[in-house]
Amino acid sequence: MTIAVLYGGTRPNGNTETLTKKAIQGLDVEEIYLKDYLIKPIEDKRHAEEGFSEIDDDYNSIIDCILQHDILIFSTPIYWYSMSGTTKNFIDRWSQTLKDAKYPDFKNQMAQKKAYVIAVGGDNPYVKGLPLIQQFQHIFDFMGTSFEGYIIGEGNKPGEILQDTQALYAASKFQESIR
Amino acid sequence: MTIAVLYGGTRPNGNTETLTKKAIQGLDVEEIYLKDYLIKPIEDKRHAEEGFSEIDDDYNSIIDCILQHDILIFSTPIYWYSMSGTTKNFIDRWSQTLKDAKYPDFKNQMAQKKAYVIAVGGDNPYVKGLPLIQQFQHIFDFMGTSFEGYIIGEGNKPGEILQDTQALYAASKFQESIR
Amino acid sequence: MTIAVLYGGTRPNGNTETLTKKAIQGLDVEEIYLKDYLIKPIEDKRHAEEGFSEIDDDYNSIIDCILQHDILIFSTPIYWYSMSGTTKNFIDRWSQTLKDAKYPDFKNQMAQKKAYVIAVGGDNPYVKGLPLIQQFQHIFDFMGTSFEGYIIGEGNKPGEILQDTQALYAASKFQESIR
Amino acid sequence: MTIAVLYGGTRPNGNTETLTKKAIQGLDVEEIYLKDYLIKPIEDKRHAEEGFSEIDDDYNSIIDCILQHDILIFSTPIYWYSMSGTTKNFIDRWSQTLKDAKYPDFKNQMAQKKAYVIAVGGDNPYVKGLPLIQQFQHIFDFMGTSFEGYIIGEGNKPGEILQDTQALYAASKFQESIR
Repeated sequence: MTIAVLYGGTRPNGNTETLTKKAIQGLDVEEIYLKDYLIKPIEDKRHAEEGFSEIDDDYNSIIDCILQHDILIFSTPIYWYSMSGTTKNFIDRWSQTLKDAKYPDFKNQMAQKKAYVIAVGGDNPYVKGLPLIQQFQHIFDFMGTSFEGYIIGEGNKPGEILQDTQALYAASKFQESIR
Repeated sequence: MTIAVLYGGTRPNGNTETLTKKAIQGLDVEEIYLKDYLIKPIEDKRHAEEGFSEIDDDYNSIIDCILQHDILIFSTPIYWYSMSGTTKNFIDRWSQTLKDAKYPDFKNQMAQKKAYVIAVGGDNPYVKGLPLIQQFQHIFDFMGTSFEGYIIGEGNKPGEILQDTQALYAASKFQESIR
Repeated sequence: MTIAVLYGGTRPNGNTETLTKKAIQGLDVEEIYLKDYLIKPIEDKRHAEEGFSEIDDDYNSIIDCILQHDILIFSTPIYWYSMSGTTKNFIDRWSQTLKDAKYPDFKNQMAQKKAYVIAVGGDNPYVKGLPLIQQFQHIFDFMGTSFEGYIIGEGNKPGEILQDTQALYAASKFQESIR
Repeated sequence: MTIAVLYGGTRPNGNTETLTKKAIQGLDVEEIYLKDYLIKPIEDKRHAEEGFSEIDDDYNSIIDCILQHDILIFSTPIYWYSMSGTTKNFIDRWSQTLKDAKYPDFKNQMAQKKAYVIAVGGDNPYVKGLPLIQQFQHIFDFMGTSFEGYIIGEGNKPGEILQDTQALYAASKFQESIR
């Protein structure tokens, strides 16, 4: 079982990243910081006669990477009660990959993976972050990916997540369950 | 009462745009197609000593525009059960504007506006789009903006929205209520 | 196609009932006012050695009735952002019917039905009533019942629902779609 | 700071009760098992000329009890993705108390309390129980009660909750935070 982490934050050492590092401590993971890649927003051509155009950016290289792993961790700060725009642009592009002749088996491959979500927010995330979790459930249902669990944490200023002992406990439980 | 529409779709004449056009027919509105502007993802520097850096893109010009209007319509296709990444990147940047000395009154100004959401999706949007509506409620609550209503529509292929008579009715009611 | 309506309100001619009457006008329906029946709360004995005890109330007669119909309309006022306790007690008892030797085919029979929800509330039901809709989706998913649609209406004082033209339109559309 | 627990389950020693007992271990609490009381469903007479009728049941005695405490714990099994009908009938009656001349200060008194929710379910409660949490948020927002936190647990057969170490940890944290 190998793991890929997709970091959606835009701040080095942000609270979500810190919590995620606790969760994956000692595990063999491939870490992808989405902000370090060029991922263009989707141009929706699902119904265009000519189909999607090839996009010149780093998106496919990330897909190539995650397809090699069994477990995907979506680590996103809660910006405005939802996943970061960076994470969203990455997921929006799946609509293109689903039609891409180079990835004929994309959905089936995703359907064999397990997914986790780690999300940290500053404004009552334990309640106001719940729609985000429901959206991830819909996303994974569509792809057939098994949504194995999520960790919500609370934190605003850098390092504050270290005071959310419940989130830290959940992170340590995750780690044990994978090992 | 003047109106700004923020289109978050990435396809010309998409279903969300079509429904929105029905809603604003005959009204005096300023239309902003977010995909035609460069809006960089936020780099979260809320807690950085140096603060946010000035960003060289079109974001501020859109803020300048919407601040002149009383009613904002967020018109976004439902991509992956949420707002488009394009729309999300725009909203994420509000965190920077809230700290921007050039917009000392941003929150107060937003608090005097009325907001509507128009969202069209293809996979059972009347149920699976509900977390998106809840997120917009949280967003508007935070800003103090009055969330006046939303229209969900169903459509996948181009033009399909024209068969969702309930969404069209809601669009016509919106129009009447504004006039 | 025959229809049963389950009214969960506790006020004669309440707003939810009024809206529902608009929706079923001219259709051949069997109407069940849950408040007129004795429905005891479930006593959860799913895991008791002796199993569930026979309950002496009117619950089974309602089940017998709805099982004869193809379409079920759950018409419940939104009390405290959820279905009425009366409706909830009725649904809670399904756990017993699922184990009841007298109804060996309960789940399969329910799985062949179509369900609609009509719900009216006074405190921003178009947003605060959404968790209720999500719960009905989970309920119907569990039973395999097809959740065909819902109508949310706004109204507080008696008759106020008649001013919610959007809900009335949805009711008239429902009627057309069934006829 | 004194505590009242409202148990909404209908099975002795159910999983929700077990988890709640862990949370309140060693604390001084008043425990109320709703199933042991007669609580009639509300008859909605908010708008009736004559107003609400006096109801001959145990409801008021429970209100008298909880009003004496600072912290309220709503301990309900997740039946059909929502609170138990027993709990719901209790809360529905608050609409009557809000109009009851004998409780002129009901809302203000509730607004000074802190509330917690403990909810255990068997079918993916960590996702499918989220609408229930959102409803409690709306309920507490309406009353002005401070929603301090919730614990979701997973369990179906008696005792299974003892394997949900994350829920148990949250229960122990609750206990520490109150002590």
